[in-house]
Amino acid sequence: MRILSCLAALALAACQSAPAIPAAPEGNTPSPAEVIAASKPDEWRTLDPENTLYMDFPGQNGKGGGRVIIELAPEFSPNHVANVKTLSREGFFANGAVTRVQDNFVSQWAQAADPARPPQRGVEKLNAEFTLPRAAIANFDVLPDPDTYAPEVGFVNGIYAARDATRVWLTHCYGMVGVGRENDENSGGGTELYVIIGHSPRNLDRQLTMLGRVVQGMEIMSSFPRGTGDAGFYKTPEEYQRYADIKIASDLPPEQRTPLEIMRTDSASFDTLVNSRRWRKDDFYTKPVGRIGLCNVTVPVRSAAQAG
Amino acid sequence: MRILSCLAALALAACQSAPAIPAAPEGNTPSPAEVIAASKPDEWRTLDPENTLYMDFPGQNGKGGGRVIIELAPEFSPNHVANVKTLSREGFFANGAVTRVQDNFVSQWAQAADPARPPQRGVEKLNAEFTLPRAAIANFDVLPDPDTYAPEVGFVNGIYAARDATRVWLTHCYGMVGVGRENDENSGGGTELYVIIGHSPRNLDRQLTMLGRVVQGMEIMSSFPRGTGDAGFYKTPEEYQRYADIKIASDLPPEQRTPLEIMRTDSASFDTLVNSRRWRKDDFYTKPVGRIGLCNVTVPVRSAAQAG
Repeated sequence: MRILSCLAALALAACQSAPAIPAAPEGNTPSPAEVIAASKPDEWRTLDPENTLYMDFPGQNGKGGGRVIIELAPEFSPNHVANVKTLSREGFFANGAVTRVQDNFVSQWAQAADPARPPQRGVEKLNAEFTLPRAAIANFDVLPDPDTYAPEVGFVNGIYAARDATRVWLTHCYGMVGVGRENDENSGGGTELYVIIGHSPRNLDRQLTMLGRVVQGMEIMSSFPRGTGDAGFYKTPEEYQRYADIKIASDLPPEQRTPLEIMRTDSASFDTLVNSRRWRKDDFYTKPVGRIGLCNVTVPVRSAAQAG
Repeated sequence: MRILSCLAALALAACQSAPAIPAAPEGNTPSPAEVIAASKPDEWRTLDPENTLYMDFPGQNGKGGGRVIIELAPEFSPNHVANVKTLSREGFFANGAVTRVQDNFVSQWAQAADPARPPQRGVEKLNAEFTLPRAAIANFDVLPDPDTYAPEVGFVNGIYAARDATRVWLTHCYGMVGVGRENDENSGGGTELYVIIGHSPRNLDRQLTMLGRVVQGMEIMSSFPRGTGDAGFYKTPEEYQRYADIKIASDLPPEQRTPLEIMRTDSASFDTLVNSRRWRKDDFYTKPVGRIGLCNVTVPVRSAAQAG
């Protein structure tokens, strides 16, 4: 009886119309660099400057500076994305700071140069955008491997996602960006944002609004000193990790933009890449695993200057 | 046909004698602090000083210092644990350094003050200790939730583990410590070690020898600047993150030891803790998930001075 209910739950959870896991490639698997080198130009897409954020850190003591680039996902959280862009354009994020770094969890940032100053044209609170109706997202690229938390997982325009029979949502994988809120589900708006810097806390899925993914600069966000206050908040403003601003790429002149390309997750090369990692076999990894976790997949990003 | 093979694979993978996932607790779930406060003294165990390593970082520029504490798992890798202890006792690790920090992957360290100096009584290479026969580990505390990579997962003396019908092994969760090697499976010995600092790379399971887990100081290991060389190696010795030494706790006088307690993973309080995180429901998390991933479980550690 226990085994039967277990089977039934698993069937529901993981087999609902799931494609089979592809077979092992013959011989050694190619490296990501080899898959990228063999890819075609139309298997990549450029970032949309209207939906790309630059978070520029000047660094401290000559270290830790650089540009963090966030690709927004307006199809999942249109109101929050629009609000964050409005906040950026009114200068809300200028001279802000990372105020919380909790180990194995999140780095969180906020407009903190003048915490008493409320948004002017943007707003502080929006209704939650946790999930969409499943049918709202047609281009869901399924990853057939079993997942602990969701019946089906995959990628939507290169961003980690999951769905069940009725809904689709973004998932809290490493590098994913979400919207801080208070207890009220509708209390977040985008004035505080966070990025996942540790083992992916998938239990947050569908409990917080997500709006994109860091596609460059995670090594900046993940290596700040951990805060020693409750929940990893820095105890003093002196510890804050300050950024110059958060700007929309299209608001900068072209020569100040960072042109990136993302491998299309509906491309043959991406399928080859995932399967070569799933069945990785080379001089070092001699025992192919045959499975890959959603958050263990890295979606390739390259400079447009590197494009073949 | 596809669905049938999928079901069969899942049945084999996740239902083999697995206990059912416990039901949701009624009402709000207790926080970890509340579960710990309600626990009994005999639900904790003290670290064995003979199988505890201290890695002391002096810090640089007054920052980043502190003690990293590793609990060894000699039942899984007796030869590697014995060798690392021999290396420690011959002073091999004195004035060593973290030489590689790859974002979302590992921090790796080695005796580097005099790289040309080989071990004297310890050895550089040992036969791999990747898995044990399943029957060798009687105290496997099963986590019934489904896992992407293994048929069954759980804890052995508080350390993350997995097993199938014939074998049992340690898993690459955040904070787990493994043995660096070359391509030859039998080329590692413990002169180079690594700790997982990002989303858990479970594809490494059974491909590298693991010997324990960091139980204090992960925030030190995870926040070093990322190396900019291939695979995250630091390009110059100036970037190395130096530690004073790696010592066995029992080799230090009692007043220099750090007395820690670990919650027993075979205790009722640990079961309560896991289930309260699996079904987390409180003022902030209003939608219980009903699942928890192996590497999403945090095994509580406290100072023996905090013991009730």
